[in-house]
Amino acid sequence: MHLTQGLRRSLQLQPSAAAVCFGTRRRTFRELGARVARLAGALQALGMKVGDRVAMLALNSDRYLEYQLAVPWGGGVLNPCNTRWSPAEIAYSLQDSGTEILIIDDGFTSVAPQIQHQAKVVREVIHAGEGNAPAGLHGYEALIEASAPVEDADRGGSDLAGVFYTGGTTGYPKGVMLSHTNLIASAFMGLAQGLIAPDAVCLHAAPMFHLVDFALAQMAWLNGSRHCVIPKFDAEAVLTCIARERVTDMLLVPTMLQMLIDHPAMQAGHDFSSLARVTYAGSPISEMLLDRLMVAFPGVALTQGYGMTETAPMGTFLPAWHHTAEGRKAGKVRSAGRATYGTLVRIVNESDAELPRGTIGEITVKGPNVMLGYWNKPTETAAALRNGWMHTGDAGYMDEEGFIFVVDRLKDMIVSGGENVYSAEVENALAQHPAVAASAVIGVPDDRWGERVHAVITCKPGAGATAQELIAHCKQLIAGYKCPRSVEFREALPLSGAGKVLKSELRKPFWDGRTRQVS
Amino acid sequence: MHLTQGLRRSLQLQPSAAAVCFGTRRRTFRELGARVARLAGALQALGMKVGDRVAMLALNSDRYLEYQLAVPWGGGVLNPCNTRWSPAEIAYSLQDSGTEILIIDDGFTSVAPQIQHQAKVVREVIHAGEGNAPAGLHGYEALIEASAPVEDADRGGSDLAGVFYTGGTTGYPKGVMLSHTNLIASAFMGLAQGLIAPDAVCLHAAPMFHLVDFALAQMAWLNGSRHCVIPKFDAEAVLTCIARERVTDMLLVPTMLQMLIDHPAMQAGHDFSSLARVTYAGSPISEMLLDRLMVAFPGVALTQGYGMTETAPMGTFLPAWHHTAEGRKAGKVRSAGRATYGTLVRIVNESDAELPRGTIGEITVKGPNVMLGYWNKPTETAAALRNGWMHTGDAGYMDEEGFIFVVDRLKDMIVSGGENVYSAEVENALAQHPAVAASAVIGVPDDRWGERVHAVITCKPGAGATAQELIAHCKQLIAGYKCPRSVEFREALPLSGAGKVLKSELRKPFWDGRTRQVS
Repeated sequence: MHLTQGLRRSLQLQPSAAAVCFGTRRRTFRELGARVARLAGALQALGMKVGDRVAMLALNSDRYLEYQLAVPWGGGVLNPCNTRWSPAEIAYSLQDSGTEILIIDDGFTSVAPQIQHQAKVVREVIHAGEGNAPAGLHGYEALIEASAPVEDADRGGSDLAGVFYTGGTTGYPKGVMLSHTNLIASAFMGLAQGLIAPDAVCLHAAPMFHLVDFALAQMAWLNGSRHCVIPKFDAEAVLTCIARERVTDMLLVPTMLQMLIDHPAMQAGHDFSSLARVTYAGSPISEMLLDRLMVAFPGVALTQGYGMTETAPMGTFLPAWHHTAEGRKAGKVRSAGRATYGTLVRIVNESDAELPRGTIGEITVKGPNVMLGYWNKPTETAAALRNGWMHTGDAGYMDEEGFIFVVDRLKDMIVSGGENVYSAEVENALAQHPAVAASAVIGVPDDRWGERVHAVITCKPGAGATAQELIAHCKQLIAGYKCPRSVEFREALPLSGAGKVLKSELRKPFWDGRTRQVS
Repeated sequence: MHLTQGLRRSLQLQPSAAAVCFGTRRRTFRELGARVARLAGALQALGMKVGDRVAMLALNSDRYLEYQLAVPWGGGVLNPCNTRWSPAEIAYSLQDSGTEILIIDDGFTSVAPQIQHQAKVVREVIHAGEGNAPAGLHGYEALIEASAPVEDADRGGSDLAGVFYTGGTTGYPKGVMLSHTNLIASAFMGLAQGLIAPDAVCLHAAPMFHLVDFALAQMAWLNGSRHCVIPKFDAEAVLTCIARERVTDMLLVPTMLQMLIDHPAMQAGHDFSSLARVTYAGSPISEMLLDRLMVAFPGVALTQGYGMTETAPMGTFLPAWHHTAEGRKAGKVRSAGRATYGTLVRIVNESDAELPRGTIGEITVKGPNVMLGYWNKPTETAAALRNGWMHTGDAGYMDEEGFIFVVDRLKDMIVSGGENVYSAEVENALAQHPAVAASAVIGVPDDRWGERVHAVITCKPGAGATAQELIAHCKQLIAGYKCPRSVEFREALPLSGAGKVLKSELRKPFWDGRTRQVS
């Protein structure tokens, strides 16, 4: 299993077919293949040897896809940077992974000097933006032009394919080492479950540094599908791209689906009839959003995937049927679905013993998609990977039919007076108050109870509520010890690159100088 | 990737669902899982250690499926015996692989002493037939009853999963070593290409010792499908099973499809409306057979797979569309299709250089499904596996769109007066004569030309032709040097377990005491 196999197959079977479109740039597989083989040669000429890491810090583009192919083609290892991270965090990940070559686009030329200053290991910077390269940087197109094509280095199987830094929501960035087999096995699981179809036209709207979009890309390469790329998620750009390119498949997070459906361009009379399948990942979908999607995109098959970078990323999936009017009666739409074809899932206690159905414990996943380990972090690797089981850090339970319900991140679980409080349960209660737009519930230090429940709230436009009102509302729905003791109102919640609330950031001011006990 | 993963997933998600039916015996996944875990324990008690080979010599049954699961569950390695082989050939394969435990059914109890006499290594024989076990043999049901269930040994990935003996058509039996990943990757390729559907009910009619049926089984386990088993291919049994069990999916060779369509039971008013997909493998399908299938099973999606034991078995596939009235206009139905999602295919010359499209050479395949090697045969392994490319021994060419056309086994190619004659081309010419039912064209020794073209013919019932007539017929269609110089008439052609003509057997009397040069 090779990241480059799908491209090579398409080069043989359909060289003249459309491969990639980005704005006005369109390339066939033959053109793409030639550029990938040349870029791989250029990277080798810049010193990339087998197993060397090459980073990219950029918005989505056709060049990002070329990077994802050219690095493995040339024998290197991918290290896509989270564009939402601070220069210091990015520099840390580059230095930690020993990444000597960095590709950036125009949005990041200004921070490149700072990153290079902090990450001394970065030796070569390639400018993959538009126009001429700034002084001291290699020009992406010039490199491709000047380089001869090289043969595929034929890396694959358990060879390291990428180091994907994660930890935005948990504080400590760790480099997740994924092999070619990890990534391709995950893609095959998706294809086997019909996540995208043989004649798919795929839209890349989620950030390409993230495995959600990377997973879509891998399925599409295996499939020989056409890739449509927009620089970043933007509701209007997504909707016009679907209409213009006759997009059939996309993979998003629910917050993006919410933004799509709320956007005025939904009413602009675009033709969305091509859209056939939408996979969402990151969290279940609300019933209300589901209802609206069904009206806006009638006939579209919705599928949920659950997983994490460490599972490359497929862990469980909820098939389209459960989202239909008929299927929703089975009541599984609040779940994250069931183990995929290639994986096993267990809910375990702290001693790794499997728990009875319905009992909350840690969700663990085993399969060919489970990471090789964390880069240079044997202790963290040993803690997360035990007997081949990836310990997700998510708390959840399994019902009688094997459906997984995620209740919280274990790290976000609040221990108050010896009782476990799952923040998601409190957030669900808050969400039922008419004034609440979004909420994040965290544990903050309390001298008496160890931790107390604290809620951070954003209100709907024009709506408002007092802390007392919200607490009283919760008391009607959930046990007293689970209800917030304090409430804070904000304009917006801090979000990670994947659209998740950064609870670590919310907790930080409360815990400064103290140590929080987490399982 | 594990052979037992699909069963384990179904045990978690759908323990009460129907798993297997064989005659009047029906079992749920829970019942099947309990039997598999106990049988694995019994095999361990009989001495099966991790990596030990366990053979089965039997017709198809529910117990054959249990064997396929219990051996890997207990940490052992499968060695399914070809039921068409002579006791001496079977004994050779058991002795060669060091197989100490052999499971047989009632059809083979009489030859068991002879096999054990020739294969001294066989220590324990288990009787998986009906009724009481003959003296000296363990009873299959008694072993299951007496044994406690054991935990899955958790073998997988590149661990050896099976030694599959092959060579029926080429003379020399070789044990093909396949890993768990080889077999499961092949199954995922099939699922990704829609070979069977999520709600499939699968019929096992092809022999279970062969990888064609084994591939179907693996897809079905991953899928969580129900398995229906008949003891062996029998047109009437297939047709009644489809109607009774509402079978949706089956995998057969074209000769079996021909026998189905010719059978009087086709006219008996059975309800075949459940049948949705048929995959055939082993050879392309004739246009005439295709026409008849379309009438007999309207709406059934036909797919072709091409491969071999060494590719576990998936190499290329021809999607259903090419078999439809519309798709047949593309003219690919005589091909073996194109590289599957996970593989690469190349046509090479003797120096492994890729040949231009349309030029005949050896078909080679690369992918995660390519075997580990031949058991104890490093020379043969090195000859077949070069740089990860499996050299299939098949001669063929690739067209501009990547479709593969198999023209012959390289070993069956006739070199006459320095010219290559592909037997398939001569056979195609003979097939167009109204009297010819089947033909096999072989090279026989010739003092002047090295080899000369010799045809072995079976005539249609009530029809006949002379050798001169057939030779004259061929001369109208193909070059003179390709036409048979001699013709022999027989009642039937010798067939291998997979339904292929045993040309080695036809050649044998001509070549006794001589050495034939083959590429």
